[in-house]
Amino acid sequence: MKIAVFGTGVVGQIISEKLVTLGHDVMIGTRNVKDAMIKSTTDNFGRPGFGEWHKANPIIKVGTYAEVASFGELIINATNGSGTLPSLEQAGSQTLSGKVMIDIANPLDFSKGMPPSLFVCNTDSLGEQIQRTYPELKVVKSLNTMNGYIMVNPSLLPGDHNVFVSGNDRDAKSKVKDLLKSFGWKESNVIDLGDITTARGTEQLLPVWIRLWGVLQNPMFNFKIVIGQPPKNAGE
Amino acid sequence: MKIAVFGTGVVGQIISEKLVTLGHDVMIGTRNVKDAMIKSTTDNFGRPGFGEWHKANPIIKVGTYAEVASFGELIINATNGSGTLPSLEQAGSQTLSGKVMIDIANPLDFSKGMPPSLFVCNTDSLGEQIQRTYPELKVVKSLNTMNGYIMVNPSLLPGDHNVFVSGNDRDAKSKVKDLLKSFGWKESNVIDLGDITTARGTEQLLPVWIRLWGVLQNPMFNFKIVIGQPPKNAGE
Repeated sequence: MKIAVFGTGVVGQIISEKLVTLGHDVMIGTRNVKDAMIKSTTDNFGRPGFGEWHKANPIIKVGTYAEVASFGELIINATNGSGTLPSLEQAGSQTLSGKVMIDIANPLDFSKGMPPSLFVCNTDSLGEQIQRTYPELKVVKSLNTMNGYIMVNPSLLPGDHNVFVSGNDRDAKSKVKDLLKSFGWKESNVIDLGDITTARGTEQLLPVWIRLWGVLQNPMFNFKIVIGQPPKNAGE
Repeated sequence: MKIAVFGTGVVGQIISEKLVTLGHDVMIGTRNVKDAMIKSTTDNFGRPGFGEWHKANPIIKVGTYAEVASFGELIINATNGSGTLPSLEQAGSQTLSGKVMIDIANPLDFSKGMPPSLFVCNTDSLGEQIQRTYPELKVVKSLNTMNGYIMVNPSLLPGDHNVFVSGNDRDAKSKVKDLLKSFGWKESNVIDLGDITTARGTEQLLPVWIRLWGVLQNPMFNFKIVIGQPPKNAGE
């Protein structure tokens, strides 16, 4: 499948690499291709800058957001949350219309110090903002509650753990679930929370995710929902 | 130990019953004792109203928030989030000074329709509001991320799952961890997230908790953090 990945950061890179190994035709999008290619410095985690990374992954095409949105049958939003709506504006609503977008970004707000807060409150989510702004785009929020390595390789963690799916379009969610399966997610570990408003729930997992990262000193973890039998009088 | 439980709802009842079975001397607090006792109607989950419940549990004392706060060496806040600060005001800062409070309440806002949102945003939490208002009270946020039955009996769910602890005072957290252990929590399943600001993380688990309850049609579940080995280049 022709897949467009928005965002040239670590998560965009990891996802793109995985998609290629699965046989997909991948084009990764950025605001300005020339600027992105110049970034050759390594990041804090020892990964090379985008230019260096692309030299090692020449099979992955690179284009502007508009170019990759035209190219992709499916779009994966791996931009920074604050860059998401601007990147979609560059792509244009005509190009986005009718396509499926997996939104894996989070509305992190670094303007109020560390750790980041969220730039949406409890009655909205980035997923809904995208869906409202582009009603013809089929937005499915998923994979935003773990790091990139685990997204594309859930067996990096022992045993079962969960990935959530939120979206208004049943067929779009079905396509996303197929992709999750190809990444290695067991069907029984995929939890469909319902429509796109349920993205409020998963985006608000980030504040505890960030603090857990600090406490565990390790970003390789994920949430598992452990379920028991309802007792007769199971209240709150 | 003499323990005060704020709040006569389902969670306050469950916690009080458990504390009695553990040999504690328990007094449960409410705004107006006479009004609380009149509540004899059963709730949606088949539990009797407070008056009926108390007839079945006469060993548990009942008093105003001020009376129970004076009584308790340890205070457990099991009020509705919106009722927490008013209940503490009735108790009075003099009475609360120097005591340890386990805050298990959540800042749920039912005014904007169902499912509820939160009345704090991303840069505050109910736990912090309590701590700021009563600096001499040692607030420890815990147990707010699961239902009452699981709080006091974690073995109702299969295998391991987690409870979080947030608070500024090390000794107070240590006392709370001892109480958690007496409830059946394994030490390895207690995650100390740090100071009281980390309550932002756990309170913001509620939006996904509420939606999971809807999807699973079962309130008997909890979060488990599944941890793996950090790879060399583990980024975001």
